[in-house]
Amino acid sequence: MERFSVTYALLADDLNEARRKAFDICVEQTVEFPYDLIPNAYIQTEIVGHIESLDTLAPGRFRAVISYHEDTAGTDFTQFLNVLFGNTSIKPGVRVDAFTLTPMQLATFTGPRFGVAGLRARTGVVGRPLLCSALKPLGLDCHALADIAYRFALGGIDVIKDDHGLANQRYAPFEERVARCAEAVQRANAETGGNCLYLPNVTADDGYTLTRARFAQQAGAGAVIISGALTGFDTLRAVAGDDQVNLPVFMHPAFSGSFTVAPDAGFSHFAFYGQLMRLAGADAVIFPNYGGRFSFSREECAAIAQGCRCNMGSLRSALPAPGGGMNFENIGDMVAFYGSDAIFLIGGGLFRHNPDITEGVRTLRRLLEQCLEA
Amino acid sequence: MERFSVTYALLADDLNEARRKAFDICVEQTVEFPYDLIPNAYIQTEIVGHIESLDTLAPGRFRAVISYHEDTAGTDFTQFLNVLFGNTSIKPGVRVDAFTLTPMQLATFTGPRFGVAGLRARTGVVGRPLLCSALKPLGLDCHALADIAYRFALGGIDVIKDDHGLANQRYAPFEERVARCAEAVQRANAETGGNCLYLPNVTADDGYTLTRARFAQQAGAGAVIISGALTGFDTLRAVAGDDQVNLPVFMHPAFSGSFTVAPDAGFSHFAFYGQLMRLAGADAVIFPNYGGRFSFSREECAAIAQGCRCNMGSLRSALPAPGGGMNFENIGDMVAFYGSDAIFLIGGGLFRHNPDITEGVRTLRRLLEQCLEA
Repeated sequence: MERFSVTYALLADDLNEARRKAFDICVEQTVEFPYDLIPNAYIQTEIVGHIESLDTLAPGRFRAVISYHEDTAGTDFTQFLNVLFGNTSIKPGVRVDAFTLTPMQLATFTGPRFGVAGLRARTGVVGRPLLCSALKPLGLDCHALADIAYRFALGGIDVIKDDHGLANQRYAPFEERVARCAEAVQRANAETGGNCLYLPNVTADDGYTLTRARFAQQAGAGAVIISGALTGFDTLRAVAGDDQVNLPVFMHPAFSGSFTVAPDAGFSHFAFYGQLMRLAGADAVIFPNYGGRFSFSREECAAIAQGCRCNMGSLRSALPAPGGGMNFENIGDMVAFYGSDAIFLIGGGLFRHNPDITEGVRTLRRLLEQCLEA
Repeated sequence: MERFSVTYALLADDLNEARRKAFDICVEQTVEFPYDLIPNAYIQTEIVGHIESLDTLAPGRFRAVISYHEDTAGTDFTQFLNVLFGNTSIKPGVRVDAFTLTPMQLATFTGPRFGVAGLRARTGVVGRPLLCSALKPLGLDCHALADIAYRFALGGIDVIKDDHGLANQRYAPFEERVARCAEAVQRANAETGGNCLYLPNVTADDGYTLTRARFAQQAGAGAVIISGALTGFDTLRAVAGDDQVNLPVFMHPAFSGSFTVAPDAGFSHFAFYGQLMRLAGADAVIFPNYGGRFSFSREECAAIAQGCRCNMGSLRSALPAPGGGMNFENIGDMVAFYGSDAIFLIGGGLFRHNPDITEGVRTLRRLLEQCLEA
């Protein structure tokens, strides 16, 4: 039997306190029981977590690597998350920085179904980042949203997503919206010869996310977008692994901000938006770009991209999809920063640039080509 | 059409910046689109959030009450959460402190199915707090766990929960464990004439939580426990509203710590563990008690109890269920602090007190009676 390991960042007064805190994690995340009262040696030595290493990073800051027997989690993804950070999430001064997995876990939680190559194959885009925009604002009816989708696709955008606030509201009910927008994008693709993908937001209540994803597939959507913190993260896996759906899955960060908002608690950006969302099956991970109206730093954005791409055994890479704050001026910087294997989301900036959004997309595509030639 | 409102705590340099931040929330949580480009007056005036009030709480601290048209959320609980805090969760310096609901929302999200009176009716406990312990440690087999359950129930404990780390591991598979533990508690009830409830942990991957809850009901469980941050919060509602299950739902806080760990981001304890979990259908909300190995303060615990009990229109009250750090010495303080409508969880302290856990429960029950007589 194998063990998986988790790297935690700890705040503590000194190495002794750090060691005590690390041992508390070993117990809290497994038996949650007084160590000296544990009734058998197997549980004490195998089930309780092991401190594999403990290092001082800076005064008051430590790094503990703790390993857990893979049997503590078994094959439930929810229970894997629980061993990773269940009760310890409630303790301040502990952050999940990274994790490794066992071969059994990698065979069970298979990650992205499409990954970078699969998304490139579906869109036909090679050698450059993909461009994505969003259908908005909330409050428009299905005809108006489909018209925007058509005009975006005509300009040559690669991916068009529903704004994450489009759910099943009465002014644009889910099924009608998805059918009309998918048809509009297919109509534009027929005119341009392109392969623009329409991504409906299928985030919904318990059980219904999968239902909506299946409807989206039937209606001709090219991929789906799910806010995993709203549905539960395993719902990404359920959709990513569903043979009826068989579409790329984009993770949207709505409601997930609390997981990385505190510097010394929750998750590192690398572990949460990178490793964890990829393990949950996201082919692309949307997150707030540096320099926009959110507060992620360049370092945090780089860490997310790294988490999407780092070696995780047999898992495919995901595409980092920075959004928020992209405009016609900073596209060159983004290409230099994220490289080619990324998706750039531009929403408000595209509407702002030119009331003719088809022309706006064409300009953006030209700008992108120029950046790549430079 | 009615509007619901959310009270946000904001950090800002001055009132002008606070007003700008509040307006940003109005836009971000709804249209996520440049306000001046919004294509029609209805969306601008009705769909975009309204700042209902803005107050200075202290230098640099403000309170904004923002109302949203109920149509922005519709009837999806996930989309209600999204309007409440979706993208704004990613911005530091904004916290959800409280919310109110419209009559349509209260009719849709019906909250606890049993509530305080229903849980008292199921357990037969009147006039005092309920006592709950946990089956542990992880790593024991089904026979050993069922034996612990039997001995707890024989002593007169009111509720016995699976430790939240018991999922479907190979040393105690879910179905066998639940069947054996439910049978053991029923056997003890037959001997004592009591109504002890066994609460299996049904937290599972997408779709399977409901499946496990239905199995638990068939096997004779008295209620179920779900870690909503692992399953997605709407899964609580799905189980609470399922007519095949028809069992009280306990919310466990595993993996939820990030939502309240930062003082100026995420949720207040009142809003998250109180209002929101109750709205999601929790009949009882487990949270870390003050003074134990977690860090919730007395004020934060009082706020959770208040959120479980405050007036929320037609919603039943939930029972606050503080756990962690309860022992034989502080039960009097807990009775004084939480009052009678609460569930006290004692795990390690009960095993620590006396190797004969049946006697330990009897002692605890006597101590509780003495506190109430005093």
